[in-house]
Amino acid sequence: MFLSELMPARDALSIIKSVPLKLDVEEIPLDDAHRRVLAEDVKSLLSSPPFDKSAMDGYALRAEDSFGHSQTNPAHLKIKDRIGAGQMSNVTLKNGEAVKIATGAPIPEGADAVVMEEYTIEDGNNLEVEMSLTPGENVSPIGEDIVVGDLVLRAGQLLRPQDLAIIASSGYDEVKVFKKPKIGVITTGNELVMPNPDISGAEVINSNHYTVKALVEATMACPTLVHRVDNAEIVEEEFERMLATHDALITTGGTAISKGDVVVDVADKIGEVLIHGVALRPGKPFAFGKVHDKPVFMLSGYPVAAMVQFDVFIRQQLKRMQGINTCPKTVKKTAARKIASTLGRTDYIRAVTDGEMVKPLKIKGSGIIRSMVESNCYIIIEENLEGVEAGEECEVILYDSLQV
Amino acid sequence: MFLSELMPARDALSIIKSVPLKLDVEEIPLDDAHRRVLAEDVKSLLSSPPFDKSAMDGYALRAEDSFGHSQTNPAHLKIKDRIGAGQMSNVTLKNGEAVKIATGAPIPEGADAVVMEEYTIEDGNNLEVEMSLTPGENVSPIGEDIVVGDLVLRAGQLLRPQDLAIIASSGYDEVKVFKKPKIGVITTGNELVMPNPDISGAEVINSNHYTVKALVEATMACPTLVHRVDNAEIVEEEFERMLATHDALITTGGTAISKGDVVVDVADKIGEVLIHGVALRPGKPFAFGKVHDKPVFMLSGYPVAAMVQFDVFIRQQLKRMQGINTCPKTVKKTAARKIASTLGRTDYIRAVTDGEMVKPLKIKGSGIIRSMVESNCYIIIEENLEGVEAGEECEVILYDSLQV
Repeated sequence: MFLSELMPARDALSIIKSVPLKLDVEEIPLDDAHRRVLAEDVKSLLSSPPFDKSAMDGYALRAEDSFGHSQTNPAHLKIKDRIGAGQMSNVTLKNGEAVKIATGAPIPEGADAVVMEEYTIEDGNNLEVEMSLTPGENVSPIGEDIVVGDLVLRAGQLLRPQDLAIIASSGYDEVKVFKKPKIGVITTGNELVMPNPDISGAEVINSNHYTVKALVEATMACPTLVHRVDNAEIVEEEFERMLATHDALITTGGTAISKGDVVVDVADKIGEVLIHGVALRPGKPFAFGKVHDKPVFMLSGYPVAAMVQFDVFIRQQLKRMQGINTCPKTVKKTAARKIASTLGRTDYIRAVTDGEMVKPLKIKGSGIIRSMVESNCYIIIEENLEGVEAGEECEVILYDSLQV
Repeated sequence: MFLSELMPARDALSIIKSVPLKLDVEEIPLDDAHRRVLAEDVKSLLSSPPFDKSAMDGYALRAEDSFGHSQTNPAHLKIKDRIGAGQMSNVTLKNGEAVKIATGAPIPEGADAVVMEEYTIEDGNNLEVEMSLTPGENVSPIGEDIVVGDLVLRAGQLLRPQDLAIIASSGYDEVKVFKKPKIGVITTGNELVMPNPDISGAEVINSNHYTVKALVEATMACPTLVHRVDNAEIVEEEFERMLATHDALITTGGTAISKGDVVVDVADKIGEVLIHGVALRPGKPFAFGKVHDKPVFMLSGYPVAAMVQFDVFIRQQLKRMQGINTCPKTVKKTAARKIASTLGRTDYIRAVTDGEMVKPLKIKGSGIIRSMVESNCYIIIEENLEGVEAGEECEVILYDSLQV
């Protein structure tokens, strides 16, 4: 069953992408919707502003009453009413009349402009207007921002602060978004223990617990983590338990290619292993399968290999499971040093970039976490390249650009 | 008390930045530390790997026993023990001996290399080794990644998945991070109601509630939101209540410049107003003060003005309150159209960029939320510029780059 040859990373990605996704939708309070993904087009139930609205503190009037007037020749009007924001005037305004009005209040019937307080003198109910206004001046007309029925946002939008504002103004306090996928994460390895300063014997700290949890969180999916020993029966039981309540599974460890290994054996037994071993460095011992129609991503136990495998094969898929279709952007940088690679293999090289140059780190090894900590980007050497010469352009992905 | 002239945005920012910040520190589980800000340098309590570790499934041996051997001339060794990951061997290995070993297990005393299973034939306790190994081959030496006492991360680091991994491997399951600042948000305005399709009379939907909440969340600070009517006594009471339990206050509405307005009057009464009115478009009616030694940011009630004011005056400050000192990067783009501005005023123009060109939106007005929804960046016209000609380079900030 196990594939004896390494699969090109591109082919592996095609297989992973071909697994059909089921996107679930939920309706949530708009208050909780920041950075969620809209699952339906939003059409406004309202116009905004909902009425001709005063844009200033001042006096509503008929603009024609002010025509030709100025500080030296003010217009003389009678104040018929005074309204604050949130209040409406019952007055139907006639020539020679004004209504004192606050920013945000509806313009009274008959008025068509607002003069700012600064250009008036109020004396009891008498008002002097010291300027000439155009009709519509200082009035935000009904529907200036949104007209009832307008399509204000489309499904698929990752909701930004301003998007929430337009949904609210459209009359909604709830919104339909894609559910965050629930991801079961099983780290395996008899030697692994949680961090403590007193490890002894053959114990090694389970750093993958933290990395994979945070990587899943960075896609906005919801991880559940457990650790299990390298025992087929126990791992199988955990597969079943997790898959009953989660949308996908990620494992670490137990993916050796030379032979069947615990995790891959279990996936093969209760499901179907579609990929085992990829032409990727670091990250060769990667497997992928379907169990009970759900995707199972099997990562290496080596921390750096696991991170690269996640970035290459999982990150986009977890985003797609919640309707996020943006891709991390590669940028072009100039290689500060020669980088060797092998035709047919994709290399993800930890590197540091600052400005236009990019410098591969000298520390290597798929167990050297420091190489991920001290770098800020990957240099990607695609399978059709034998490497890059110093001074040549190369493809780079900044870690910061991976975050949703 | 109220400043009669508009303050340049740059000067306003200097005043805001000059308010001393108190950064609080808390110790949290490493499990919760993704995207928090490290408050102390981290020195490792452990070496990693903690012992000379097998990097492969295979057999530990003395490399010299394999020198010169090959498939046609295998070395013959005796298997003295078999260990899995998490197990140690008590064997002290002598010439002619091997220990079967799993990836991740400690190399037994006396061994200095591991031969991969693929290059061996096992028959009972007899082992044939079909290759010649160098000392150290397939062994990850103790401290290869981290040496005990190493400084692995510095205070101020925004914690990425790989940073959590190195903290774990250093022996810590808790970590000291800067506390997320608690931000009280008071929206004001008698006319404002929560979203519903049946608004009537002079009611307007309080979209600022959603915008400001999400803007605060985008800085990783924690907002508490309330709405209050335009009444000095009620607003003052809310100022006192919020400031007793929060690190800073943001308000919307009540910042008119021509006269005292509710919110600014309250800040002036119980504290000190340092800024009132800035040479920024949109966003002129902005105020800032200190009340009980805490910063109070007073935003316009106009949605677009409030967003721009947040981006110019608040976003960086909320980040600094939790130890994040990165600045949003401006990028250079080519203006697709002429953009007019006024000397002495800073303009933040909503625009769309795609590739090298940037196009200002035609829809304007500080109440037009659509202008924020339909744009993906600001064009910034600094106060020393009178505008930008079509085809000229201009400064742009992408909205996506504002998110922490």
